[in-house]
Amino acid sequence: METTAKTKSQTFINSDQLLDHWQGHRRLTRKVIEAFPEDKLFTFSVGGMRPFGELAMEMITMAAPGVEGVVTRKWMSWTEMEASFPKPKTKADLLKLWDAATDRMNELWPGMPAGRFNEMEKFFGQWEGPVYWSILYSIDNEIHHRAQGYVYLRALGIEPPKFWER
Amino acid sequence: METTAKTKSQTFINSDQLLDHWQGHRRLTRKVIEAFPEDKLFTFSVGGMRPFGELAMEMITMAAPGVEGVVTRKWMSWTEMEASFPKPKTKADLLKLWDAATDRMNELWPGMPAGRFNEMEKFFGQWEGPVYWSILYSIDNEIHHRAQGYVYLRALGIEPPKFWER
Repeated sequence: METTAKTKSQTFINSDQLLDHWQGHRRLTRKVIEAFPEDKLFTFSVGGMRPFGELAMEMITMAAPGVEGVVTRKWMSWTEMEASFPKPKTKADLLKLWDAATDRMNELWPGMPAGRFNEMEKFFGQWEGPVYWSILYSIDNEIHHRAQGYVYLRALGIEPPKFWER
Repeated sequence: METTAKTKSQTFINSDQLLDHWQGHRRLTRKVIEAFPEDKLFTFSVGGMRPFGELAMEMITMAAPGVEGVVTRKWMSWTEMEASFPKPKTKADLLKLWDAATDRMNELWPGMPAGRFNEMEKFFGQWEGPVYWSILYSIDNEIHHRAQGYVYLRALGIEPPKFWER
């Protein structure tokens, strides 16, 4: 990296803004879950990809347990952690897990150690990178898979929620 | 916002990291453009949505002109700016516009005024919000529409590029 670029560098966003941004995306994803008909949530897909209920479970698995690992520096393996979640069978079960994750993230976030975002960390004992990178990865992964959900809804003839309404 | 949360707040990412992150996403989107067969790029879609070539043009329209508006504080209207871009007819034309945007963003970014990300701004004279929010919106919009492209590729029987390879 050049010295010129380095001296020009400034804060892009702070940690409170990042949590607000993330929870805004999570509110939108919650609306996408709600928009699915009960009988399509765990069954419908396009191009052989996973149904939206499974994608939403992947998001839940990364969200609060990811923040917990970052804040406490203790990690379960991805496999252990996936196994620790009950498999939801209904939309209501899934939304309950979703809302519990929202509360847990808000509760954990203020305990973030200073300077933590630039430390290197193995997420779930497996994926190594700077903490900020892995947190952005979780958010980006949610946006990516939620967009799959948008296509599924369109293919079902259902108007998805507006992307900009968080 | 509570005082406790405020005093705990710290930098999440700086401006250099954000540009790297964005360009990483743009490299991935470039691979998705390349993965489309020439005859499907501007024609194929699922659920009545726009073909991927059009979505990629939307991303190009937001990227460098967005950074230019932020850095220079001068904006064309969205309509004027869309009209200023030639409509690409081939994959090669589209990739040429894509690469020009990459260079232009890298060139403009170091001129970012100090404290700019927290200023309020009307993007393209139209969408008002803090600058950091609108920049994240451009990135999120790209991730969102690129994921549509992933579904299109799957529906065409084509394996998309790995999400984590930037």
